[in-house]
Amino acid sequence: MPDLRGAAKRLLVGRPVRSENLGRTLLPKRLALPVFASDALSSVAYAPDEILLTLAFAGTSALVLSPWVGLAVAVVMLVVIASYRQNVRAYPSGGGNYEVATENLGGNAGLTVASALVVDYVLTVAVSVSAGAQYAAAALPGLAGHEAQAAVVVVLLIALANLHGVRESGRAFAVPVYLYIGGIGITALVGFVQYLTGHLGQAESASYQIVHRSDLDSGLVGLAGALLVLRAFASGSVALTGVEAISNGVPAFRKPKPKNAATTLALLGAISATLLISVLVLSRLVGVNYVENPATDLVTSSGQPVGDDYQQYPVISQLAHAVFQGFLPAFYFVAVVAGVILVLAANTAFNGFPVLGSVLGRDGYLPRQLHTRGDRLAYSNGIIALAVAAIVLIWAFDAQVTRLIQLYIVGVFVSSTLSQLGMVRHWGRLLPAEPDPARRTRMRRSRVVSAVGFVMTSLVLVVVLVTKLTHGAWIAVVAMLVVFGLMKGIHHHYEQVRAELALGDDVESARALPSRVHAIVLVSNLRRPAVRAIAYARAARPSVLEVVTVGVDPDEVDELRAEWDRLGLPLPLKILDSPFREITRPVLTYVRSIRRESPRDLVVVYVPEHVVGHWWEALLHNQSAMRLKRRLLFMHGVVVASVPWQLESSARTRALAEHLDARPRPGDTRRGLDRPDR
Amino acid sequence: MPDLRGAAKRLLVGRPVRSENLGRTLLPKRLALPVFASDALSSVAYAPDEILLTLAFAGTSALVLSPWVGLAVAVVMLVVIASYRQNVRAYPSGGGNYEVATENLGGNAGLTVASALVVDYVLTVAVSVSAGAQYAAAALPGLAGHEAQAAVVVVLLIALANLHGVRESGRAFAVPVYLYIGGIGITALVGFVQYLTGHLGQAESASYQIVHRSDLDSGLVGLAGALLVLRAFASGSVALTGVEAISNGVPAFRKPKPKNAATTLALLGAISATLLISVLVLSRLVGVNYVENPATDLVTSSGQPVGDDYQQYPVISQLAHAVFQGFLPAFYFVAVVAGVILVLAANTAFNGFPVLGSVLGRDGYLPRQLHTRGDRLAYSNGIIALAVAAIVLIWAFDAQVTRLIQLYIVGVFVSSTLSQLGMVRHWGRLLPAEPDPARRTRMRRSRVVSAVGFVMTSLVLVVVLVTKLTHGAWIAVVAMLVVFGLMKGIHHHYEQVRAELALGDDVESARALPSRVHAIVLVSNLRRPAVRAIAYARAARPSVLEVVTVGVDPDEVDELRAEWDRLGLPLPLKILDSPFREITRPVLTYVRSIRRESPRDLVVVYVPEHVVGHWWEALLHNQSAMRLKRRLLFMHGVVVASVPWQLESSARTRALAEHLDARPRPGDTRRGLDRPDR
Repeated sequence: MPDLRGAAKRLLVGRPVRSENLGRTLLPKRLALPVFASDALSSVAYAPDEILLTLAFAGTSALVLSPWVGLAVAVVMLVVIASYRQNVRAYPSGGGNYEVATENLGGNAGLTVASALVVDYVLTVAVSVSAGAQYAAAALPGLAGHEAQAAVVVVLLIALANLHGVRESGRAFAVPVYLYIGGIGITALVGFVQYLTGHLGQAESASYQIVHRSDLDSGLVGLAGALLVLRAFASGSVALTGVEAISNGVPAFRKPKPKNAATTLALLGAISATLLISVLVLSRLVGVNYVENPATDLVTSSGQPVGDDYQQYPVISQLAHAVFQGFLPAFYFVAVVAGVILVLAANTAFNGFPVLGSVLGRDGYLPRQLHTRGDRLAYSNGIIALAVAAIVLIWAFDAQVTRLIQLYIVGVFVSSTLSQLGMVRHWGRLLPAEPDPARRTRMRRSRVVSAVGFVMTSLVLVVVLVTKLTHGAWIAVVAMLVVFGLMKGIHHHYEQVRAELALGDDVESARALPSRVHAIVLVSNLRRPAVRAIAYARAARPSVLEVVTVGVDPDEVDELRAEWDRLGLPLPLKILDSPFREITRPVLTYVRSIRRESPRDLVVVYVPEHVVGHWWEALLHNQSAMRLKRRLLFMHGVVVASVPWQLESSARTRALAEHLDARPRPGDTRRGLDRPDR
Repeated sequence: MPDLRGAAKRLLVGRPVRSENLGRTLLPKRLALPVFASDALSSVAYAPDEILLTLAFAGTSALVLSPWVGLAVAVVMLVVIASYRQNVRAYPSGGGNYEVATENLGGNAGLTVASALVVDYVLTVAVSVSAGAQYAAAALPGLAGHEAQAAVVVVLLIALANLHGVRESGRAFAVPVYLYIGGIGITALVGFVQYLTGHLGQAESASYQIVHRSDLDSGLVGLAGALLVLRAFASGSVALTGVEAISNGVPAFRKPKPKNAATTLALLGAISATLLISVLVLSRLVGVNYVENPATDLVTSSGQPVGDDYQQYPVISQLAHAVFQGFLPAFYFVAVVAGVILVLAANTAFNGFPVLGSVLGRDGYLPRQLHTRGDRLAYSNGIIALAVAAIVLIWAFDAQVTRLIQLYIVGVFVSSTLSQLGMVRHWGRLLPAEPDPARRTRMRRSRVVSAVGFVMTSLVLVVVLVTKLTHGAWIAVVAMLVVFGLMKGIHHHYEQVRAELALGDDVESARALPSRVHAIVLVSNLRRPAVRAIAYARAARPSVLEVVTVGVDPDEVDELRAEWDRLGLPLPLKILDSPFREITRPVLTYVRSIRRESPRDLVVVYVPEHVVGHWWEALLHNQSAMRLKRRLLFMHGVVVASVPWQLESSARTRALAEHLDARPRPGDTRRGLDRPDR
C-alpha cells in the first residue's frame, strides 16, 4: 500500500519543522495565556449558569446565595492557583500533576492522576465545544436542534488546526480570548456604573418566578437545602477546570519558563475570579432567573408556565441584553465571543493531551507511537485520539452541557488533590537537606500553601463525590478506573516484553552465528517476479539454494517444469506434493522438516511479491503469499525475504512519494542526511 | 497475526479431503436430483401464486386462464430442457451455458451469460429463502414480521452446510425434496379423485370476490388485457429458473456423467411440469383467490373488504387445506415441506455458484482466489461471497418475494437464449466435418431442438423485458451490466499484468545476477530481536554489512552506542540523522543513496519484527517497522528480510497451528509430504 497518507497529511497540516527549530515555537506570556488558560477562562461562560440553575431548585429566593457560592469557588480557585505556582517552579519539565504525583507518591498515584487527566481532557473538549454550540444556537436560531452535529464539526476543525502545531494555535486564538475577557469585563463595568447611577435595567427573565421543587418547600433550610448549596458549589467549581493546563505546559513557555508560567497562572486566577464574581453579582442586580427546564419551571406573575416557546439565553447573554438594552450589536458581540471562546477552550486540551500522551507513551503506559512526534512538532497521534474520544462523548450525550458537566468535575479534583499532597511531601523531603535558612523559610511557606490547597481540594472532592456521584459523576469514575487498568495492562505488557528481550550479560550469544544458510525461493510460476527472486537469492550465495513450488494442478506443474528446463538454471526445482490442494501447509511442513534435519541452519524463504499502486489491486494479488508469510514468521530460525516486483501501476505512487521525500524542509541545508553520525 | 482461522474453520467445516478422494463425492442420480433440481422444483411453490396474483388484477373471472398460462410455461420449460439435454452431452465439463456461449459466440457472449448467472445465483438464494421464510411464517404465526431476519439466519446456515462439501449436502437435502414432491403429488392426486367422485371441497378464499383494477374494467379484452396475460406468463416462467443448474453441475455426476445428467434433466422436466399444471388446475377447481394486497383487493359477497385481519396462505397451503379439510397434520405437512424445500432450493445456488466462480477465476474474470479449492473440496470463497450478496439483497428487499421475483426472471432467459444460440452454432460447425450420415441426422435434429429453444426463449426474454422492466427487472439488468464491467476490468488487469510479467525469450536476463549484496540491519535498540537480526544477516555473508539506526533522541543514541561497544561486534554502526524526528524518511533516503552509488548492487534490508500472539499486542509493537517495510517494497533492487522474534505470547498460537497441521487427513498415508516430486 502506498504511503500517500504522507502526501495528504502534508497538504492538510503544512510543512514539517526541524528539531532545532523547536525553540522558535515557544510561547511568550501574552500568547501562552490564551493558549493554556482559555479553558479556565471559558468556564466563566457556564459556571455561573450551573450555580444559578442548581440553587433555582429551591426557588427564586435561593438565588440570593449565588454570589456567595461564587465567592467560595473563587477562594478555592485562588488557593489552588497559589499551590500550582509552587508546582511550576519545582517541576518545570511539564509533567505537571502526573510528574509531581509519580515522583513524590509513587507510580500508582501518578497513574491515578494520569487517568483523571486523560478523562478530563476528553471532557474539556466535549463540554467546551458543546457549550459553545449552545451559545452559537442562541445567536443563530437555525442551529438549534443540530448542536451535536455542529460540535462534531468544530472538534474536527480544532484537531486539524492543532495538527499544524502549537505556534499557529496561539496566534489564531489570542484575539478572541482577549475580546472575550474585554467583552465580559466591559459588560460588568458598564453594568456596575449603571447600577451606581441608578440606570441599570432588568433582565428579561426577571419578570418570571421560579417553581421550586417539592422536597425543598422550606427553601435552603435543613439538610436538603444544605446539600443543594453544596451541590451548587460543586457545580460552580467547574470554574477550576483547566487551571492545571498551565502547569502541564511549562516547557512551551519562553524562558525563564517557571517564572513566566507562574506569572501567567497569577494573571489567570485574577481574571477568572473577577469575571466569575462580577457575573454572579450582576446577574443578581438585573434579576436573572436561570433554570433547568424553563418551559415548566418558569412561571409568569399570574402563575402560568412560560411554555415551550420561551427561549432561555445563557446568563452572560442575558446580562449583555440587560446592560446594553436596545443596542443589539453589543448583545451579539458578547454572545458570539463567549461562543467562540468556549470552542477555543477545547484547544487547551488539544495542547495538553498530546504532551501527556507522549509522556505516558515514553513511560510505557500508552502505546509507544504516542511518543513519536509528528512532522509539525505536534503529537499527531494524541491529537487524533483525543478528537475521536471527544466526538464519541458529544454524540453519546447529544452535546448537552448540564449532563456532561456532572462527569467533568471529579477528575480535576482527583488530580489536584494528589498533586498537592505530592508537593507537601516534596517540600518535606527537601527541607532537611537545605542548609540556607532563607530558603528553608521559603520552603516551609510553600509547604503550608500546598497543605492548605490539599485540604481544600480534598474537601471539595468529597463534596463533589457526595453531591454528584449519582448525577453522572460515576461515569467519570468508571472511565478513570478503565483508563487506569488499561494503562497498567499496557505497562505490564511492555515490562514483560522488555524482560523477555533484554540481552543482559549474554554477550557471547550475540556473536554466535547460524552455521549455514538454507535458502528457499517459493514460486508458483516462472514469470519476472519469480525470476527476480531467484536471481536475488542466488546473489546472496547461500549454502543451499532450492526453488520450491507447490504442485496443485498437474498441468500447471508440467508447464512450470518445461519453463524451468528452458531457463536452464543451475539449481534444483523441488515440487511439493499437495494432496489437499493447499498452498500454506506443504510449505510449512517442508520448512519444518529442514529445521528438524539441521537445527543450526538458518532458513531464508524468498517470496516474490507484487507491489501494486491501487488498494483494489491488492485484492487481486498476493493473497496466498501474505497468508504464508504470516505463518512462516511464527517459526524459529526462519527469515522471510520479500522480493518486490513493482507493477507499472505502482510507478506513479512511488514517484509522488519520492518527490515529497526529496522536498526541502524549512531550515534543511541538506547537510549529511546520509552522513554517518560522528 | 496467527492463522487461527484455520483452526476455527476446521472445527466448523470438518476435516479436509484428499484430491484423489474427489471421485468419492460424485453424486448418483437419486442424490443429484435433489441437489441440483431443488431450485427448479421449488419454484412450483411460488410460480402458481405469481400467475394467479397477476391475472387477479383483471378480477376473479380472469383466473380461468391460469391453467392455460401454466401450460404455456410448461411447454417452454420442456423445450428448454430438451435443448439443455443437448448441452450436457456436448459439454460435459460443467462450464454449462458460460462455456457453450464462450466457445461458440465468443468471450463477450460468454461473459454476458456469466453476468446473468452470477446475478441469478444470488437471486435464487434471496428469492427461495425469502419465499421459504414466508411459508414458515404462515405455519408459525410468531414468525410474521421477522421474515428477513429468519431468512438471513437460514442463508448463513446453508452456507455453513455447504462449506462441509457437496456430498453431505446431497444426503441432507434428499429426504425433504422427495417429501415435497410426494406431498404436492398426493395432494393433487387426492384432489383430482375427490373432484371426479364429487367430494372436492372449496378453498377458504373461494367465498370472496377479487376487486379488479380500474384500467382493466373490460377484463382481459384489449391491449391492456393481453399485456396482463403476457405478464402473468412472464411471472410464471420463474418456474424455469434453476433448470440450468444441472447443466452447470455435470462434473459432480457419477459416470457416465452426460447421460446421467440428461436423464436427471428429463426427470426434472416431467416432475416440474406435472406439479405446476396440477397445482394450477386444482386451484381452479377449489376456487383459490390469490391477490397482491388481500386486505383491500378481496371483498366478501356483500362487497366488504376483508381487511387486515385476513391472512392469505400460499396457494399450495390453500390447496392442502381444501383437499384435507379437517385434517390439520396433512395441511401442516404440505406447508412445512414446501417451506423447507424453498430454503433448500437456495442450496442449488450454493452448489452452482462456487463452480462458476472457480471457472471465472481460472479464466481471470474474477479474483484468482476463487479458483483455489477449500479444504473440504468446496470452493469456500465463492460460497462466502454468495451468502454475503444474498443477505444484502434479502435485507434490501425485506424478504418480499413478489418484489424480488421481478428481478429474477431476466437472467435465466438471457443465459439460456445465448446458450441455445451457441448450440445452434455448435452443431452448424460440427456438421460439415461429420462423415457418418446417422450422426449427421442426429446432429441436424439436435440443431432443430436448439433452434426452437432459442426462438422460444428469446421470445420469452422479450416478453419479460416488456412486461417486467419497469417493475424491477431493470435492477437485474443494471446488476448484470455492473458485474459484466467488473469482470471485464479484472480480466483486463490480469492480462496487463501477465504481459508486464511475461519473461518471453529473455532467458539471458534470468541468469544475470546482481553484482554484490549490500546488507543493512535496521535497529532501534540492541535487544534480542535486533541481535538475532544482526546474527542472521552476518550468517548470510553479504559483501557489505552495516547496522543502521535512526538518531531521534540523543540520549537513546548514546545508550545504543554504549551497548554497541559492549557487544564488540566487528561491524560498523551507522546512525542516520533525523532532523524532523521521522523514522521512515531517513532510511528511505539512505537506501536510495546506496542504490544511486552502486546501481548494480542488491540492497537487503533486515528488519527485526516482533511476532505476537494476540491481535491487540500488534497495536503495541511493529508500527514503525510495518510502515517502513511497505515503503521499502516500492524501491527497485531492494529485498526486505523480516527477522521474526517470537514473543512468548505467540507460543500457544504456534503450538496449536502445528498440532492442526500435523493431524492426519483422511486417506493421508504420510508418504512423502516433503519428498521431491519425481
